[in-house]
Amino acid sequence: MSQVIAEMSMSLDGYITGPNHSARLPLGKGGERLHEWIYELTSGRELHGLAGGEFNQDAELIAESNRRTGAVILGRTMFDHGHPFWGDTPPFHMPVFILTHEARPAEIKNGGTTYTFVTDGIERALEHAKAAAGSKDVKIAGGANVIQQYIGAGLLDELLITLVPILLGNGQKLFEHIHSPNIEFVRTAVIESPNVTHLRFRLFHHTNA
Amino acid sequence: MSQVIAEMSMSLDGYITGPNHSARLPLGKGGERLHEWIYELTSGRELHGLAGGEFNQDAELIAESNRRTGAVILGRTMFDHGHPFWGDTPPFHMPVFILTHEARPAEIKNGGTTYTFVTDGIERALEHAKAAAGSKDVKIAGGANVIQQYIGAGLLDELLITLVPILLGNGQKLFEHIHSPNIEFVRTAVIESPNVTHLRFRLFHHTNA
Repeated sequence: MSQVIAEMSMSLDGYITGPNHSARLPLGKGGERLHEWIYELTSGRELHGLAGGEFNQDAELIAESNRRTGAVILGRTMFDHGHPFWGDTPPFHMPVFILTHEARPAEIKNGGTTYTFVTDGIERALEHAKAAAGSKDVKIAGGANVIQQYIGAGLLDELLITLVPILLGNGQKLFEHIHSPNIEFVRTAVIESPNVTHLRFRLFHHTNA
Repeated sequence: MSQVIAEMSMSLDGYITGPNHSARLPLGKGGERLHEWIYELTSGRELHGLAGGEFNQDAELIAESNRRTGAVILGRTMFDHGHPFWGDTPPFHMPVFILTHEARPAEIKNGGTTYTFVTDGIERALEHAKAAAGSKDVKIAGGANVIQQYIGAGLLDELLITLVPILLGNGQKLFEHIHSPNIEFVRTAVIESPNVTHLRFRLFHHTNA
C-alpha cells in the first residue's frame, strides 16, 4: 500500500542543519557533514562499480527508496534553493508537488520530472501526490518545516532517520514545532552503515491517547 | 584497560528529561518514559526469571555494565536527589565519588558502597575513581551537566546512548554546554531492543582538528 515517507540525516544532538543556516548557506556551518555518508557512498560506487562491500547496504537503501517512491512533495524554499542546480533534467524523474502560496503554471522537465505548484495546503498536495504515485510511496522531501507539518497533521507513515555521529551545537532541529503529543514511533529497522546508523520508524497517531 | 564511560537514555528529540524538571520532578513532565525500558526489563526478568527471550539482550547489557564498572562518579545534585531513596544499602556496591563544593567526611554504607566527596574538580575526582576502580571502568553516572563536563574536557572514552522513540519537546538536553568542537564519535555497537536502540560510541578528542 502506498505510504507517506520522509528521510532525514540528523546529528547526534538533533540538528539537520548547522548553525547560521540561510538561503546562502542552506545547510548552515558544518551541516554538509550530515550528508558526507552519501558522498562517500557515491565515490565508493564510482570507484568500485557498486562492488565496494561496505557501501552496498547504503546503496541498497537509496535504491530501494528510489524504487518505492512514485511522487515527491517539496516546500517552496527547498524548491527555490534546489531549482537552479537541478536545471532542465532534475534528479527526481517523477511528479513533484511544490507547496507554495503563489499560483504558478506546472512545468514539464526532461527525464520524467514534472513540477506542480499547490496553493491549497499540505492535505491537498498529498492527495495530488498520492494520485500521481499510484501504488508507490509519496516522499516528503523537505524542508524540515514541511516534514514537521506532515508529522503534526498525522499524515506521515514512515520516517527514516540517518543518525550521523557528530555534534552541530545549533541549527535547525528535526523535531520542533510538532504540535501533536500523540505520536507513537515504532522502530521497524536498524541499518548499520560504516559511519552512520539508519533508523526506520513507523508513525502511529492516536487521536485520544 | 580501564575506561571512562557514561550511559544515558535520550529521546528522539535529544532530551534526557521532560519539560519543567526540578528537584521535585527530576525527570520533568513525561521523562519517566525514558526509563520504561528498564522497568519493562525488570518486570520481564521477574516474570520470566531471566528466560524471557526478548529481554535477554537488555539484561545482558546491564549485567555487562555492572561487571565492567569499578567506581562511579556522581554530581552533587544527583546525589542529593538519590540519597534518600538509596538509604543504608545503596545499589552501587562499589566506591562512589561525589563532585561537590562543600567538604564532607566520607561515608561507608552497607554492601560495598562508599561515598567520597571531592571538592577539587572533575579531573581529581577521576583520579580518585580510577585508583579505586583498578582495571575496571569508571562510570560517570550523571547528571547530564557532569557528563557534559567530562565530554568537554576530553575525559570520556565511551558513551552508550539508549535512544527512546518518543518526543519530549523540551527539557534537559544530553548534548549542550559542550565546549569542544573536536570530538569524534565512532559507533562501536548497535543493540536493538524491543522498544529502544542502544548505540555505543567511542569518543576521540582531537586537540588540533
